[in-house]
Amino acid sequence: MSGFVKNAWYVAGWSRDFGEDLRALEITGQRLVMFRTLQGVVKALEDRCPHRLLPLSKGKRIGDTIQCGYHGMTFDGDGRCVRVPGQENTPASAYVERFPVEEWHGIVWIWMGDPDLADTAMIFDMPEFSDVGWHAHHGEALHIEAHYLNVAENLVDPAHVSFVHPTTLGSAASENVPVHVSTAGDVISAWRWIRDAAPVGFFQKFGGFSGNVDRWHYYHLHLPSTAVIDFGSIVVAANCAEEDRDQGVRIFALHFVTPVNADYTIDHWMHLRNTSLGDEDASAQLDGMFKIAFAEDKAILEAVHQSEQQPQRRRPIRVAIDKAPTVYRKRIRDLLAEEATEVLQEVEAPSFINHD
Amino acid sequence: MSGFVKNAWYVAGWSRDFGEDLRALEITGQRLVMFRTLQGVVKALEDRCPHRLLPLSKGKRIGDTIQCGYHGMTFDGDGRCVRVPGQENTPASAYVERFPVEEWHGIVWIWMGDPDLADTAMIFDMPEFSDVGWHAHHGEALHIEAHYLNVAENLVDPAHVSFVHPTTLGSAASENVPVHVSTAGDVISAWRWIRDAAPVGFFQKFGGFSGNVDRWHYYHLHLPSTAVIDFGSIVVAANCAEEDRDQGVRIFALHFVTPVNADYTIDHWMHLRNTSLGDEDASAQLDGMFKIAFAEDKAILEAVHQSEQQPQRRRPIRVAIDKAPTVYRKRIRDLLAEEATEVLQEVEAPSFINHD
Amino acid sequence: MSGFVKNAWYVAGWSRDFGEDLRALEITGQRLVMFRTLQGVVKALEDRCPHRLLPLSKGKRIGDTIQCGYHGMTFDGDGRCVRVPGQENTPASAYVERFPVEEWHGIVWIWMGDPDLADTAMIFDMPEFSDVGWHAHHGEALHIEAHYLNVAENLVDPAHVSFVHPTTLGSAASENVPVHVSTAGDVISAWRWIRDAAPVGFFQKFGGFSGNVDRWHYYHLHLPSTAVIDFGSIVVAANCAEEDRDQGVRIFALHFVTPVNADYTIDHWMHLRNTSLGDEDASAQLDGMFKIAFAEDKAILEAVHQSEQQPQRRRPIRVAIDKAPTVYRKRIRDLLAEEATEVLQEVEAPSFINHD
Repeated sequence: MSGFVKNAWYVAGWSRDFGEDLRALEITGQRLVMFRTLQGVVKALEDRCPHRLLPLSKGKRIGDTIQCGYHGMTFDGDGRCVRVPGQENTPASAYVERFPVEEWHGIVWIWMGDPDLADTAMIFDMPEFSDVGWHAHHGEALHIEAHYLNVAENLVDPAHVSFVHPTTLGSAASENVPVHVSTAGDVISAWRWIRDAAPVGFFQKFGGFSGNVDRWHYYHLHLPSTAVIDFGSIVVAANCAEEDRDQGVRIFALHFVTPVNADYTIDHWMHLRNTSLGDEDASAQLDGMFKIAFAEDKAILEAVHQSEQQPQRRRPIRVAIDKAPTVYRKRIRDLLAEEATEVLQEVEAPSFINHD
Repeated sequence: MSGFVKNAWYVAGWSRDFGEDLRALEITGQRLVMFRTLQGVVKALEDRCPHRLLPLSKGKRIGDTIQCGYHGMTFDGDGRCVRVPGQENTPASAYVERFPVEEWHGIVWIWMGDPDLADTAMIFDMPEFSDVGWHAHHGEALHIEAHYLNVAENLVDPAHVSFVHPTTLGSAASENVPVHVSTAGDVISAWRWIRDAAPVGFFQKFGGFSGNVDRWHYYHLHLPSTAVIDFGSIVVAANCAEEDRDQGVRIFALHFVTPVNADYTIDHWMHLRNTSLGDEDASAQLDGMFKIAFAEDKAILEAVHQSEQQPQRRRPIRVAIDKAPTVYRKRIRDLLAEEATEVLQEVEAPSFINHD
Repeated sequence: MSGFVKNAWYVAGWSRDFGEDLRALEITGQRLVMFRTLQGVVKALEDRCPHRLLPLSKGKRIGDTIQCGYHGMTFDGDGRCVRVPGQENTPASAYVERFPVEEWHGIVWIWMGDPDLADTAMIFDMPEFSDVGWHAHHGEALHIEAHYLNVAENLVDPAHVSFVHPTTLGSAASENVPVHVSTAGDVISAWRWIRDAAPVGFFQKFGGFSGNVDRWHYYHLHLPSTAVIDFGSIVVAANCAEEDRDQGVRIFALHFVTPVNADYTIDHWMHLRNTSLGDEDASAQLDGMFKIAFAEDKAILEAVHQSEQQPQRRRPIRVAIDKAPTVYRKRIRDLLAEEATEVLQEVEAPSFINHD
């Protein structure tokens, strides 16, 4: 099962990524073909013709249907077969699986589990998306050759910031500052304040801080793998209370972590801010700084992934800073156990395909 | 076993491909070294010195023998050891397997099974090779990253032509024209006539047809994997009977499908025609058109092969157009079952080689 | 176990290879990080942080400690954890394995087995290293995609020289000259004299021989994988006795064969000579000739390794020239069997890492 929670909404891409063309994707190990219908609705189907297994993404779009590129078998946007060349009827077995899709704030979400359980109310949202005092900017997609649980865990782990991002998001000043953790409810949170310290590189450039600041990092991880990182800085003189973070320069970095397969993950990231509203130069500046920092994460996560492929003679140890990641792993295991009772058994590839 | 029929003649290459040099090939998963003797006879041996396993193709040809490049053990063209440096005798175990080879019409055939069963009368032939009214032209070798059964099946499958080759060999006019199938005897045949339709791209260019034509496609698949495709066009006014195809522009495309291993196949293709005899420009024009069409097949077959490597949760479906392919698979399974009783068990690599 | 003798000293590199920088290596399948302390001592540690498995070589050197690049856990040169950021104590499980290292004649040796058994008296040595009548020159590292036992076996195998090195180290004159073998003690030796023959290419260039010579090749293989090749030439008129080789031009080629993993081996080679003392041009000339010859070995050994990966239907044969290699294999098997009783069982990667 490779640790994929199936009954969940994952981000397939930004709205701008989906148009008329057939687009091939892989999510939770499932190959998909996606496209936008003439009416503008995004559809997602299993990317495998049930006849000779050619990916439908190699075929041709005809209206709102896909014609297979091998023998012309044709499917509508819900996976129903509407034509089998050479015969009148369409057999009941001639269908492809469909996956529920929902668009929301410029983001395309897909449900990888049982379609009957797909509840759009479960899609991640936050009020700042619709608040005129906030500016939302859709960033890019970071491709990481690592397992998605390591990627997501890294996003509820303030302790790595001082060491992985010493010149961008963190500094040595925070190395020993304790981390608070809250694991009640559906969200795992970890946070810390570093009071009265020099601003980190990020806020020297963005916000223009030069004297000492109070700064905060709040990491909220929504199961299975959406992270909200609330971070910001404010001059020390403001004597900012924890709940008054809006008075400072405050940024939400959102990470929508999508498992591709056991060795590959895509992190669609975007940000919201309470300053420089409507200023696209500011957005581009933030993008640039984030890309430097995320490349630092990518290098570490890919090296860890490689190391995990080695034979292991000792079990990894866990230490005090791991509280939030450890709870996260536990919650994921619980979700997987829950799903295990309902998952279809993967059948062996039939001898037909083995050619023997 | 990977679905390879062993007791069969496969094409190793064109006669022009074999000269003095040692040539390394793989057929049905067997590594081979081949060369032409001083007398001009092509020889094929197991490409593995029985001593330290160096491929003999890395060695040196001395007269009509091959000297291994590691310790000089030397073998004649029938695989017999004729020298072991450092000792007088040649042990009985010092031999390499030999594979019967036969040249015929500029084609080099190899028998991959029991040499005692190799009967040259079983090699594919057709009278047009020796008929002055026909022009034979040896084409090229198409390398395909796919299993040979999918490649061969595609050659007894008229239904794919409209969708894979819509601007070259087929057109939408044929999408729903029924296919006739005959499976009596050793050859599986499928064919159809498309009457009174615009000529396909191929016959607009070759034959110069512009008005409507009657055209035919006959696919004959000789077990295990030699295909003869008889196709052509004739003006509608000729009211051509099925048996009078020679009155039109008629072409035989031959495909000699050679399994390399479970993931790789080579299709040596050539053609014969009843027009433009001796015209090498016409041959080159046909080659060019075939290469465009075969690249279309290659793209589809390689995508199908990739898709087959994925875990399969549902068995592929078969539909009406699959009659000939389905019979073909059945005949191959019968041949494999027949051979299974006589095949040597593959032994485990001895601990000697495992280094432990 | 892949055939690796663990309780042995292997060459990790030349002294010149190790400085302040963290250097990642792999020996006997074990990933290592190595560096030279401020006091000049070379250290070797397991290259895997016990916390989240990031290779320590991706971290940062701080004094004589290594700080992990992910969460800053810090280890001294003996693998002891000296800091866990975010907590006061360092748990007993927070350590990395250490491997004994010894420098000797400009060579860095590492012990891959039980540190308590590491006896520096077992490190390979020979008196010529300290003899003013001899010149030692450290060569290079030959990387070979092959199993180390094949590489080492090749170094106690005089019979391959005529065929693999026909224009450099050998010639057809030696093809049938018998080989003497001695297998008493800890060293397996094979040797032969070729009397009164034209000098091989090597000694035409080095030593300037033009008339016929007596030449010798002595191959001494010290378990598990250090080879000393004593070879030279002398004019026939000298009527040289076997024990008087110092009267000729005599060269020791040393090969320190280090198993990297089951598919990769590094051969650190150097030479000592009793002529052209202190002449660095002569050293460079020898290096150049050796590199040509060793590239010939590499090509053969890599082709053999590839061939060994194929399914094997027949067990390789052994012939008269294989006496020394056969004894070598037997001795290695004995050493492995001895170690098998004491080796820790490799445990399965915990579910923690499998992400499920």
